[in-house]
Amino acid sequence: MTGAALVSGLDYAAVAVFALTGALAASRSQLDIVGFIFVASLTAVGGGTLRDIILDRVPLWVSDPVMLLVAAVAAVLVFLTAHLLESRYRALEWLDAAALAIAVPAGVGVALSEGMGWPVVLVMGMVTGCMGGLMRDVVCNEVPMVLKQGELYVTCAFAGALVAVALGAVGVAGWAALTACAAVVFVLRAGSLALGWRLPVYRSRPPRAPKR
Amino acid sequence: MTGAALVSGLDYAAVAVFALTGALAASRSQLDIVGFIFVASLTAVGGGTLRDIILDRVPLWVSDPVMLLVAAVAAVLVFLTAHLLESRYRALEWLDAAALAIAVPAGVGVALSEGMGWPVVLVMGMVTGCMGGLMRDVVCNEVPMVLKQGELYVTCAFAGALVAVALGAVGVAGWAALTACAAVVFVLRAGSLALGWRLPVYRSRPPRAPKR
Amino acid sequence: MTGAALVSGLDYAAVAVFALTGALAASRSQLDIVGFIFVASLTAVGGGTLRDIILDRVPLWVSDPVMLLVAAVAAVLVFLTAHLLESRYRALEWLDAAALAIAVPAGVGVALSEGMGWPVVLVMGMVTGCMGGLMRDVVCNEVPMVLKQGELYVTCAFAGALVAVALGAVGVAGWAALTACAAVVFVLRAGSLALGWRLPVYRSRPPRAPKR
Repeated sequence: MTGAALVSGLDYAAVAVFALTGALAASRSQLDIVGFIFVASLTAVGGGTLRDIILDRVPLWVSDPVMLLVAAVAAVLVFLTAHLLESRYRALEWLDAAALAIAVPAGVGVALSEGMGWPVVLVMGMVTGCMGGLMRDVVCNEVPMVLKQGELYVTCAFAGALVAVALGAVGVAGWAALTACAAVVFVLRAGSLALGWRLPVYRSRPPRAPKR
Repeated sequence: MTGAALVSGLDYAAVAVFALTGALAASRSQLDIVGFIFVASLTAVGGGTLRDIILDRVPLWVSDPVMLLVAAVAAVLVFLTAHLLESRYRALEWLDAAALAIAVPAGVGVALSEGMGWPVVLVMGMVTGCMGGLMRDVVCNEVPMVLKQGELYVTCAFAGALVAVALGAVGVAGWAALTACAAVVFVLRAGSLALGWRLPVYRSRPPRAPKR
Repeated sequence: MTGAALVSGLDYAAVAVFALTGALAASRSQLDIVGFIFVASLTAVGGGTLRDIILDRVPLWVSDPVMLLVAAVAAVLVFLTAHLLESRYRALEWLDAAALAIAVPAGVGVALSEGMGWPVVLVMGMVTGCMGGLMRDVVCNEVPMVLKQGELYVTCAFAGALVAVALGAVGVAGWAALTACAAVVFVLRAGSLALGWRLPVYRSRPPRAPKR
């Protein structure tokens, strides 16, 4: 498989899984079917579109509109089946973990293919992985997962992207590096969700001045 | 009227009417006059700017700064007159409906003029129509209209854009298709506001895990 | 100092000071160290990135990734020392005032160097100054400073950018104009924070329809 095909495949998979998470968030907001498709699409292509705009590429779904169909189908699926889930929020968390583990290497791969230096590669992995979910959570008024206290999230994206960059520096690139990146992201995020892995949080004092 | 002039005229009208809605949201947040102008401008050009960035065009107000003046004048008007309205929120909803009905064909027209395929045309109609209002509502901490439970909103934008695409497919384009698009958007949205038209929402269960 | 070096120096300074404010917001949300770096970086480069995307430039931190290091170092500093502050929110407000006073001339300088007309120069000063902080506040669920009732904020950015444009019109440009711009922004914002300077706000009526 060529690098371009690999990265494009990752983009498709990330779109599909992020769309499922967006549709689950829509079900928690009790939207109608078009609202499901809207939030699913925003979540699915949000991170990749931001990545492509920053790198001055044509956004993924403009060059390949089938991605929009993928997101819409995922939204319809969730609209029809979400009541079968015992806990939609739990499903949302685990699907989001899978999507993160796919989208971070997608971002890393695109940034490498554009010849970016390693700091930009790191950030692009994090942007592609985290920003779609952040848009979903801000729009649906959920607590942004990316900022949830006492969980690893951005850290997983950062560690995965770092592994890909480090492997690249020692000559391991292509699908091996991107697979390692995905594995690191998913294992860290799963450890945080299932086992409570975390970094020490800033605890000195809660805020006194009011937040909204 | 040429296609370019028509689309440019739609952009102007959408800017003016969306600016009114932004200023009304600012009055609900009790901002000062510069805050009115800021929210009005963000709402007015937000959707069109996103459309232009995605399509790699110069954003509308960069190539034509008079649009900023239009938004500022609309904000000042509302600052001086909003106390005359019986219900600012009702006015906001109806002006937003009008702005949506103007901005969707504006987005469709630009995407067609850039030679995009129909899925991208659909999305551009929805982005141009919905995103300025979404930015307004997130920034002012209003319930996003685009996601209000039990109302048609994205659906109106989607249906209008679909009509324009379908008319284009059977050879009806230009102002006839864009007028039909605007009419469909406004009628659906008005029906939702005045008569309670809606699609079935996802009702199986309200969320249990807390939202913020 | 050449114009380009001056503007680049302003960008660096704005990144550093905005990153401090982002990290303080992260401490109020009790995030971990990677969360600090994430919010600090978003705040630090958010406004400048938006400016660069709108003007179709390579975003500042893509062309110069050292900026990301600056933001990360600032975040770590705050993580280690924020408990020494008597009031983090007060520190956040004053650092944000300083960052605003640096970022507005940075935006004005870039827009001038791209040959933009004065309305776009004004808006670019405001976008570069205000948008990073707005992203920080929306993501961390703080009351957006930019919209805080009864304070000058956007007004300071607007006045500063206007001074730079006016000085340019009478032949004073370069560092003199940008320094005057920064001084106007900071004095107005400091006057608002310390002495309660304000414009009359829209007070006719508080909103009746619910906000979220």
